[in-house]
Amino acid sequence: MSRSALGPGGEFDRIRRIVSALGPSAPDVGDDCAVLPDGTGRVVVSTDLSIEGVHFETAWLSFEEIGWRAAAGALSDLAAAGAEVIGVLASVGSPRGAADGHLVDLMRGVGAAATAAGGVVLGGDLSASPQWVVDITVLGRAGAPLTRRGARPGDGLWLTGVPGLSRAALTAWRRGEQPEPDARRAFAHPAPRLALGRRLAEAGARAMVDLSDGLAGDAGHLAAASAVALDIELDLLPLAPAVVRAAERQGTPAPVFAAEGGEDYELLAALPPAFGAAAAAALAMATGVPLTRIGAVVEGSGVRLWHERCQVRLAGYDHFA
Amino acid sequence: MSRSALGPGGEFDRIRRIVSALGPSAPDVGDDCAVLPDGTGRVVVSTDLSIEGVHFETAWLSFEEIGWRAAAGALSDLAAAGAEVIGVLASVGSPRGAADGHLVDLMRGVGAAATAAGGVVLGGDLSASPQWVVDITVLGRAGAPLTRRGARPGDGLWLTGVPGLSRAALTAWRRGEQPEPDARRAFAHPAPRLALGRRLAEAGARAMVDLSDGLAGDAGHLAAASAVALDIELDLLPLAPAVVRAAERQGTPAPVFAAEGGEDYELLAALPPAFGAAAAAALAMATGVPLTRIGAVVEGSGVRLWHERCQVRLAGYDHFA
Repeated sequence: MSRSALGPGGEFDRIRRIVSALGPSAPDVGDDCAVLPDGTGRVVVSTDLSIEGVHFETAWLSFEEIGWRAAAGALSDLAAAGAEVIGVLASVGSPRGAADGHLVDLMRGVGAAATAAGGVVLGGDLSASPQWVVDITVLGRAGAPLTRRGARPGDGLWLTGVPGLSRAALTAWRRGEQPEPDARRAFAHPAPRLALGRRLAEAGARAMVDLSDGLAGDAGHLAAASAVALDIELDLLPLAPAVVRAAERQGTPAPVFAAEGGEDYELLAALPPAFGAAAAAALAMATGVPLTRIGAVVEGSGVRLWHERCQVRLAGYDHFA
Repeated sequence: MSRSALGPGGEFDRIRRIVSALGPSAPDVGDDCAVLPDGTGRVVVSTDLSIEGVHFETAWLSFEEIGWRAAAGALSDLAAAGAEVIGVLASVGSPRGAADGHLVDLMRGVGAAATAAGGVVLGGDLSASPQWVVDITVLGRAGAPLTRRGARPGDGLWLTGVPGLSRAALTAWRRGEQPEPDARRAFAHPAPRLALGRRLAEAGARAMVDLSDGLAGDAGHLAAASAVALDIELDLLPLAPAVVRAAERQGTPAPVFAAEGGEDYELLAALPPAFGAAAAAALAMATGVPLTRIGAVVEGSGVRLWHERCQVRLAGYDHFA
């Protein structure tokens, strides 16, 4: 992808079409390397691999949605660091028979997600592939990047957004049905919590993780990295109607369904006890994203999930399973 | 991949095994984001996608070689920018049935290539996949990163190393034969020209490109990006015996065979006229890599390739073809 002019060749015609479709969202791409603009703070980077048949099916999503979702999932890692977005790199494998328009649409979705997050498309790589493959690398900057380490006993545990909608969409598709609109939107067009992530960092968050592997799985990483235990009250999880109905169809309690769902791209943050309901309401108001206290950090190790006064054992979401 | 402790789960056991195998080549990985160490110069970044059946076959290479080669190919982009290596991110898709040992070996190869280049493994992502997929993102720093733009009429065109060996290996495998050792080594264990790339930048190189798409293809990018024409004398290309024999088998003149071969990961640099044979010999001596003048930058556009006083038309290497 290049604003540097490219030499002749079919592969480069394809790149030229993508760059033209991306317009200002890819201002200066196409050399061997992309050069990051100067800025203050540490550079943070993350990468996220999406594969057709594992993470998505082309029957479920438009190509623009496939690109958006792959980019948004990676951008969510920057949100968890409390970082500002610089830009994204996209490595895309496309089947030999695929229409060039699909590749252009996919990259249009990547570009739209990058732009919506305040960044640009910095570069990428294209290859033939037996199935669609999208690997997105995101780069950002943060004064003091948040990690999963640093939660302390006494901190409150706060959750952004409404979990379980992606899972509701997935279970519908896997039954051969169309998901409800809210569930479909959460899966196809997730909104990485960048603004709220930065606000939580400014509000003194001590540790943060995004819920790509689901609340049940990712809470375990935060607990292990911080060497603490987490008590989570599943009955405090905010529940969307589509999640309640999807859980009912499956005969699973809705909070359990929501906690086991992967790829919500919400954030779980540990905040000092001084951060209370009023501060949370102000942040939620400012960003338009719900912020809910769902538990506490305590001494010990591991995650205890409570549902109707019972401790429950839940599975994390595993892409290899 | 994490020095941050990870929560429980099969996917994370896999990551723990990789981190343990990588040892000091992955000092601090596993959070949502990797944080780059501070340093001077601009941050440069590039990404390179390798897919089983397109870029390699598991019958040709060990898994450690697959990892090394994928990382080395991406690191070569940093060499072309004249950059120092910070580190790499590895997104790896592995077949569900694959032995965990293969994944660990692959990552060992990635780690070895990163370490040999002066960097570390910063992070990555793992997924199930129908076939092996390796996407490597490389990060580096350069005071004034070189690009493909900036070559001027009158500049000399200099080539590192000996081109065509990767193609000699590929043609042997595709005939069902074993490549000659030199050819096999060039394909399985390429050495990105990082030290020589930096020396060329210090020596005043005006534009540089790596030959991942072959001399014939990548020279076209340098010409187009710099808005100049290139005259390249194919008869000046240094020829390895294995390339001469492979070309002979195929009934192709050896310089043409070498110029059309992809994935050599050598560099093509435009240097001012003052850079002469003595300066080149000193750099070659210091780095142990041949450096050969193969042509000149002239006014105009496009690449003219000369072989035995005739202008020839060659194809670039196209992964979609």
